Amino acid sequence: MARVLTPRAEDFPRWYQDLIAKAELADNGPVRGTMVIRPTAYAIWERMQADMDARIKGAGAENAYFPLFIPESYLKREAQHVEGFSPELAVVTHGGGKQLAEPIVVRPTSETVIGEFMAKWVDSYRDLPLLLNQWANVVRWEMRPRLFLRTSEFLWQEGHTAHASEEDAKAYTLKIHHEVYERHMRELLAIPVVVGRKTDRERFAGATSTYTLEAMTGDGKALQMGTSHELGQNFARAFDIYFSSAEGTRELAWTTSWGTSTRMVGGLIMCHGDDNGLRLPPLLAPTQAIVTVVKTGVEDAAVKLADELAGAGVRVKLDDRVDTPFGRRAVDAELKGIPIRLELGPRDLEAGNVTLVRRVDGSKTSISLGLATTAVLAALETDQKALYDEAQARREARTRDVSTLDEAIEAAGDGWARLPWAKVGVEGEAKANESSVSVRCLYRPDGSVPAAQDEPGLIAILARSY
Amino acid sequence: MARVLTPRAEDFPRWYQDLIAKAELADNGPVRGTMVIRPTAYAIWERMQADMDARIKGAGAENAYFPLFIPESYLKREAQHVEGFSPELAVVTHGGGKQLAEPIVVRPTSETVIGEFMAKWVDSYRDLPLLLNQWANVVRWEMRPRLFLRTSEFLWQEGHTAHASEEDAKAYTLKIHHEVYERHMRELLAIPVVVGRKTDRERFAGATSTYTLEAMTGDGKALQMGTSHELGQNFARAFDIYFSSAEGTRELAWTTSWGTSTRMVGGLIMCHGDDNGLRLPPLLAPTQAIVTVVKTGVEDAAVKLADELAGAGVRVKLDDRVDTPFGRRAVDAELKGIPIRLELGPRDLEAGNVTLVRRVDGSKTSISLGLATTAVLAALETDQKALYDEAQARREARTRDVSTLDEAIEAAGDGWARLPWAKVGVEGEAKANESSVSVRCLYRPDGSVPAAQDEPGLIAILARSY
Repeated sequence: MARVLTPRAEDFPRWYQDLIAKAELADNGPVRGTMVIRPTAYAIWERMQADMDARIKGAGAENAYFPLFIPESYLKREAQHVEGFSPELAVVTHGGGKQLAEPIVVRPTSETVIGEFMAKWVDSYRDLPLLLNQWANVVRWEMRPRLFLRTSEFLWQEGHTAHASEEDAKAYTLKIHHEVYERHMRELLAIPVVVGRKTDRERFAGATSTYTLEAMTGDGKALQMGTSHELGQNFARAFDIYFSSAEGTRELAWTTSWGTSTRMVGGLIMCHGDDNGLRLPPLLAPTQAIVTVVKTGVEDAAVKLADELAGAGVRVKLDDRVDTPFGRRAVDAELKGIPIRLELGPRDLEAGNVTLVRRVDGSKTSISLGLATTAVLAALETDQKALYDEAQARREARTRDVSTLDEAIEAAGDGWARLPWAKVGVEGEAKANESSVSVRCLYRPDGSVPAAQDEPGLIAILARSY
Repeated sequence: MARVLTPRAEDFPRWYQDLIAKAELADNGPVRGTMVIRPTAYAIWERMQADMDARIKGAGAENAYFPLFIPESYLKREAQHVEGFSPELAVVTHGGGKQLAEPIVVRPTSETVIGEFMAKWVDSYRDLPLLLNQWANVVRWEMRPRLFLRTSEFLWQEGHTAHASEEDAKAYTLKIHHEVYERHMRELLAIPVVVGRKTDRERFAGATSTYTLEAMTGDGKALQMGTSHELGQNFARAFDIYFSSAEGTRELAWTTSWGTSTRMVGGLIMCHGDDNGLRLPPLLAPTQAIVTVVKTGVEDAAVKLADELAGAGVRVKLDDRVDTPFGRRAVDAELKGIPIRLELGPRDLEAGNVTLVRRVDGSKTSISLGLATTAVLAALETDQKALYDEAQARREARTRDVSTLDEAIEAAGDGWARLPWAKVGVEGEAKANESSVSVRCLYRPDGSVPAAQDEPGLIAILARSY
């Protein structure tokens, strides 16, 4: 069989690009850095959205929608924020046929405009916490675009909350980070993310604390899958988010923000893809099983099997395109990462069997038609775990415990380096950056996230990243 | 009780504005014409989206996502299209800190960029029909903004399809128009829309046929709730959407597009709102019933009642904010249009009763607690129909059959005018426009949509509009 994709070991970025094209996931848009998300990938994104949205609502936040356009002056009110985002802005200077009096920026994120409205809506401590989320597109001009991972426009959810105390803001940020993001990624995406704190150098522009979730890609690099920020009183001060306390005093609120994006689709590909294409975790997969009519003559039995699976709650599709060669259809299903293929040919049917092919390991088993649904349900459950375990084992195998910065930089050529943060420090971090290695996150020996980077005893993960 | 809203009869536009502010539905954004959709309204939009999305998928279209930014040159490829949209464009001239070589427009609609990709993806007749939809924000610079109805940025779905024949394109456009849009509006929104064809003058820029759904507002004007377009081969020609036919010839495809937006939220308010606020159709309402603790002491019984309703599938909320005056809470529930209030006070509880208040007509009934769930389920069903019937009766009462253009213009001062299109014609239409009256749509005597405006015997609806 002709090879469909560049093998990962030969050229991982090229493999990634090939896979996205061949599986019909996305195309480059006409404006540099933009992306067209094709139906196959958009269906994956929709399932991510549905799960994430339910978890966010479960954490008490409500959805709202704020404008795409932000007056340039808003960004300037928070000094670090404007400094961080200025190089990435798209600026609208003309509207309705006229030059605008004040330039407008296309939102790179919405802390500023949401801050403005929080100030209007928050009056007393009874209005807090104010827990908002929005699903939206944002624009950050991208010099080195890569589909899903770095695009000038991307889709995301951004949560924004205001609280009466620093403790409450911190607790809510960590609740979102662990209970919403970490669980979404581990349970639905089957990605064993490492959770930690960003260093001061890597922190979000305008935040006091940034927490991250880092995934290991198939080539041993790191990918930031989502971040949550405590914003202290920085944006509250810039936008006058005051409230009267229970004691009647006028107090400044504490705000947070947190986001995950279509970048997760890229992370999914880079974490679970193999040389034959994408592998979708069964819980996430828009289509969990496909019943393939190998040759004409078995259509009725194939329809019956598909109906039986659908009745058992399996998201199933029937592939009866017998005009297209069977091999090409099998390659296509593999490229798109459909977890289970049920191949039914005349000989299978005669023997009362069907061939069950598992995408996770390519294994083929001939099983009795009467047991097919039970077997599919079992395989879906097993394979969700198998993908997680495989990713976890790779992460462990490709993480090296080292004890010096030089060793860490060397180890990052092939995987992650783990070492005491005290061996790196602020100067070591700058030096690592010169070698295109970054501190991905810091965490405590018990795995919890630190309150500051100068806490003693912290562990650092260093790696190259996408 | 102090009046909460300007009465509709006094100043309908002011009533609309008051209602949106008091019910906390939306705010004006900082950039002129933009809008902040607050959680109360966004939850309504989410329920519209879920229903519409399921219907669109049921009609065979798949969701995808195309870029926000479109090269200015794309719009220029279809002459009528660029002429129609030029005055409404927002133009990005700077990105990533630099002036751009070619200006970029923020999409006012996506026919052009989607046309470009259809050309890439369509090769043979086997690739047709290609049925795509996207949920997105679009920007049309608005000189006379009005929340939900006319905003410089709005949220919508836009469907785009390509077909092998004109007949197939027409049939699919009408399928979306009737089976998706019309049924969504009648069945979920309880709005008795009139369906027809737009005149050539009112047609979408670049289309060969535009079909519309028109609702009557509470002040007797018309509101366009959605449109579907046959685009002929105009965009296929501009973007080279060719396919090889079964006979091996190279053919130009036929395309369509169709959209509905957050404008529907405005239509909902204007159609069903009364002097006390919004009235939500029960099937649409994010919260269908609210159990109100009138005074402290009945909390346990209220929780039990709410649980029972939730168990019966009712979307229910508990209002136990006894620190807030009961009257204010009742006014708030009325403003927001919650279909059913169940008011439970100590005296009700003692008698084993609860007061059921129906938003649709304000009626109050004391019912036995044991029968509450049955009564709520019955009321939800009745009131969905009641809102539809009321809107239908108003539309009929405020539609006058007239026989001359002058009578039509006069009748449009207070409602809709219905008359033979032959009595209006192209010149009459221009004259009506001078009096701010427009031809909303044309239809055949049997209610079906005509294939062209010069079909004999057509009926025209003339009205003022939002």
